[in-house]
Amino acid sequence: MPLTLAKLPYEQDPEAIELSRKRLGIRVEKHTPLALQRHLYRPRCPPVLRGAFTVRRASSPQSAMDHDERIKALFPHVHHKPIVEIAFHDGEKPMSIGRPLRLGVLFSGGPAPGGHNVLAGLHDFLASRNISSSLVGFLGGPSGLIEGKYKEITEETLFRYRNQGGFHLLGSGRTKIETPEQLDAAFTTCERLQLDGLVIVGGDDSNTNACVLAEYIAARGGTTCVVGVPKTIDGDLRNAYIEASFGFDSACKLYAEIVSNLALDAVSAQKVYHICRLMGRSASHITLEVALQTHPNLAIISEEVAAHKQTLGMIVDTIADLVCERAALAKNYGVIILPEGLVEFMPDIKSLIQELNEVLAQAPARNGVAAGDAPQNPSEEADEANALGDPDASLVVIRRIAQRLSKESAELLSSLPSAFAVQLCMDRDPHGNVQVSKIESERLVAEMVERELEKRKQEGTYRGKFSAVTHFLGYEGRCGLPSNFDCNYCYVLGLVAGGLVENGCNGYIARATGLTQAPELWHVGGVPLTAMMTIERRKGRDIPVISKSVVDMAGPIFQNFKRERHSWALSDDYRIVGPMQFYGDGADCLTISMQIGD
Amino acid sequence: MPLTLAKLPYEQDPEAIELSRKRLGIRVEKHTPLALQRHLYRPRCPPVLRGAFTVRRASSPQSAMDHDERIKALFPHVHHKPIVEIAFHDGEKPMSIGRPLRLGVLFSGGPAPGGHNVLAGLHDFLASRNISSSLVGFLGGPSGLIEGKYKEITEETLFRYRNQGGFHLLGSGRTKIETPEQLDAAFTTCERLQLDGLVIVGGDDSNTNACVLAEYIAARGGTTCVVGVPKTIDGDLRNAYIEASFGFDSACKLYAEIVSNLALDAVSAQKVYHICRLMGRSASHITLEVALQTHPNLAIISEEVAAHKQTLGMIVDTIADLVCERAALAKNYGVIILPEGLVEFMPDIKSLIQELNEVLAQAPARNGVAAGDAPQNPSEEADEANALGDPDASLVVIRRIAQRLSKESAELLSSLPSAFAVQLCMDRDPHGNVQVSKIESERLVAEMVERELEKRKQEGTYRGKFSAVTHFLGYEGRCGLPSNFDCNYCYVLGLVAGGLVENGCNGYIARATGLTQAPELWHVGGVPLTAMMTIERRKGRDIPVISKSVVDMAGPIFQNFKRERHSWALSDDYRIVGPMQFYGDGADCLTISMQIGD
Repeated sequence: MPLTLAKLPYEQDPEAIELSRKRLGIRVEKHTPLALQRHLYRPRCPPVLRGAFTVRRASSPQSAMDHDERIKALFPHVHHKPIVEIAFHDGEKPMSIGRPLRLGVLFSGGPAPGGHNVLAGLHDFLASRNISSSLVGFLGGPSGLIEGKYKEITEETLFRYRNQGGFHLLGSGRTKIETPEQLDAAFTTCERLQLDGLVIVGGDDSNTNACVLAEYIAARGGTTCVVGVPKTIDGDLRNAYIEASFGFDSACKLYAEIVSNLALDAVSAQKVYHICRLMGRSASHITLEVALQTHPNLAIISEEVAAHKQTLGMIVDTIADLVCERAALAKNYGVIILPEGLVEFMPDIKSLIQELNEVLAQAPARNGVAAGDAPQNPSEEADEANALGDPDASLVVIRRIAQRLSKESAELLSSLPSAFAVQLCMDRDPHGNVQVSKIESERLVAEMVERELEKRKQEGTYRGKFSAVTHFLGYEGRCGLPSNFDCNYCYVLGLVAGGLVENGCNGYIARATGLTQAPELWHVGGVPLTAMMTIERRKGRDIPVISKSVVDMAGPIFQNFKRERHSWALSDDYRIVGPMQFYGDGADCLTISMQIGD
Repeated sequence: MPLTLAKLPYEQDPEAIELSRKRLGIRVEKHTPLALQRHLYRPRCPPVLRGAFTVRRASSPQSAMDHDERIKALFPHVHHKPIVEIAFHDGEKPMSIGRPLRLGVLFSGGPAPGGHNVLAGLHDFLASRNISSSLVGFLGGPSGLIEGKYKEITEETLFRYRNQGGFHLLGSGRTKIETPEQLDAAFTTCERLQLDGLVIVGGDDSNTNACVLAEYIAARGGTTCVVGVPKTIDGDLRNAYIEASFGFDSACKLYAEIVSNLALDAVSAQKVYHICRLMGRSASHITLEVALQTHPNLAIISEEVAAHKQTLGMIVDTIADLVCERAALAKNYGVIILPEGLVEFMPDIKSLIQELNEVLAQAPARNGVAAGDAPQNPSEEADEANALGDPDASLVVIRRIAQRLSKESAELLSSLPSAFAVQLCMDRDPHGNVQVSKIESERLVAEMVERELEKRKQEGTYRGKFSAVTHFLGYEGRCGLPSNFDCNYCYVLGLVAGGLVENGCNGYIARATGLTQAPELWHVGGVPLTAMMTIERRKGRDIPVISKSVVDMAGPIFQNFKRERHSWALSDDYRIVGPMQFYGDGADCLTISMQIGD
């Protein structure tokens, strides 16, 4: 006996549920009342997007055309285009029904809340123009485009996904469209499907790829317009042209809720320090936002660590100092947050990792034995060392590796808790590099702080108790129900991307600005992707990239944090966040980062 | 410059915020709009609690008086009392103003959402009776009672905590009131403060303690009525008399949201298995509830593991089989949930732990070296072994310990990933016991499944990719904002507890029944704690306990799960939960366990 409606809660709107149920045509008990209700949410958008509109050169163009000469050279077909805006159709001109368009879309990289509403926006744009238009979604990310794997997206396939989380209608992937073969395959798919447009929903890398593909297609004489949509929970796709990437708002709200719960747990039980690492490897936007939302006792920002050249030992001391100060107030508890990429920003660990990558590169990637020290039977030792579970063998290898490092790095390696030393030396990616993303820095820090406090206890400078519980918050924020903001923003970006394709804006990224206003007041349009690009020198080659936005230490967001954080260290004046709401006060509240703006 | 109102979101109810702000008298920017709005929530309750009421023998008493003779002997003063209910005051009798009461209250054990509303209910009950009444809260749990540390709870101290999460107005603790000295100290505090009543908010153990204290005080001729309130997120304080403990509803909603997000993440990125361990050590109610809410590919229930004598190897095989089946469908991803206490329910691990506890008990607790094998200089080896970080020393010790175990246990120990073997042998509590709660079974299982799949790959029976990301969900659910249900339930329990004290119901637990109905329809009253007690034989002594409720495998909740789970294994028909809402459809929706009822 499945649950029946009669068994459902004692209060809800039966009409709304019945309507959802009819539309979905499925057993209501498979869905929560909330998910059903979200199906009925109608995203808000600027009125200009509701009717016929034109795309025109922006009335107040920014300096989008001040390109680096090297960018011009790399993108002869798509650079030097104007910023465009979407405006009401000029009533004097006759408005014709749009020609039927054929659009492709794909998700690239990690999921972010709101992705399905980009599809909904694209779909609704096409439907509003010409009923014969069609939308295809490539499966599993860019590889679906390369391999020509796709599905038609119709209202029937789409409507269950409106305002819902995840990327699972299409799936996603991290394949890049970079090599000549990949570019050719992508081009072939676009030609074969006769796509008027291809919308790539992704972060900085994926939008760079989108621009490369746009150039490639134009150079080959293709007519598919490639348009990007800014997605990433990390918030590091933000610049003079793009105010926000979608997903950041929803993800931060969940992380902040959890950190705020942990803070109250710490002060309620008064037994432990909760040490949380938060997603966002290259930039600490999430950690900064969560700090502003929750007021933890300590938040470490990678960009500041790098700027002040703070070593692992200095970070450990900072935390140990805080614990001592709080212990003197009889507070043997607290909450500390760290950014995912922290270890990569500490100069000493960074050097160690670089040296390890070099030393390890000399040995076959799989076995972790430096070549110069190869024993009689290398494969045997390799097998042994490979057994990460065998500490005997691992330690032998680590000691051998340490001999090939600089004095400083060797000392640092030997000072690390052994599990981390093993991980650094043994657990490498297919290219033989240290897998930095797998380093659980929250545990590393917790162990080293414990050790430091033990030392201080013996020295008589600390008398408290220290017990740490570690957390990593990341995956749980990537596929939650999108906030009202992300629902609206993604839907608008989808509508805008459709408009850009219709108007032949190849190599553009869709955008909305004025996001702190109500959605009805947003300005919408597009920016050429080349306008956001810079050249980076990598492995002896000039590579065009969209720079990741990192925390601006001079900007108002960080400055706000810097001004307030001292008062958070001892006061336990945690800010209660609670679960994200879709109705009532605060349901349309933006992240603090967005409210302040950099 | 702190954030100002002008910088706050573009849509909210300024009047409500202004009202909250005035009441709170604090900077609004320290609070989220949601927290402010929750301050204004007025808990719903049965009308009988709004006015004058009487406490009377329940009209349909259950068999509360069929006591075990041993219970009668242990609790001569508080056993054999009737179940009582709260009813409207009989209009014929003249209603006098209540005498001023003096009440004490404390939180015991881990925090659970809603605790502050118990205080609010108590406070409002007292205020409604006689303005000269007073409420004191003991600090840091039972130790506050023993040591006489408390604070007065007035509307002024309380109102910021209404409908908010955490236990931080008073703090909590795990001290038990058991020994003659502790009982005497508690009694002394009650006498000194001239308490008419003492309300103990806690789980099964704390309520057992409450009953012991009630008996003790009565035996000493004291007049303080001890009343319990059922609290625990684990949901294991549930029986013929108590339908639910508070906190379970709110906590499960958060866990289910997170698991549902992880499920969508799995199917969106199609790269990893999310393996989540969920809080609830002695019982799997949380895991079962979260399974019913989210439809994971696999949920393991400890009670079933014990009933079917499933060993660690069998669990690993079950998971590996699922992974293989899904890989055959090109699904190299999924979500699996496990209960916190899993390892203790597996017969082989249970035996290993028992043997280890015995073997290790023979050595000094701190060094992990079995006494019989003590080397020349034991303290030196002890130091070495103590350095959990030193795998060389640890392995020597583990091998030595293994020699003293049964053949089966020695084999099991040697089959475990070394980090876990080290943890089992070295990381002991102050009594020398294995710290079972610290075993990260989600990681243990993930590593062993990976190993098993590697084996199958070499045998040619599996061709997929397996990558696991592990999670432990627990602390984040203990101090969240309470759901509407928990707000109402706790407030009602507080009002009822006040009524029980006023009517001299010593040794009772406050309760509300009919919880699947709207709060206005709940029945309220009290049950003598002895009615829920049984005798357990521990260390040669008869100990009275309130039995923990474990998952009833014959009951409708488990049967519902059992019927549905096969369809979840391969279909990825995850149920989208989303963040808990306070307004709109589903805001008053109960957990599925409560809707079904056992």
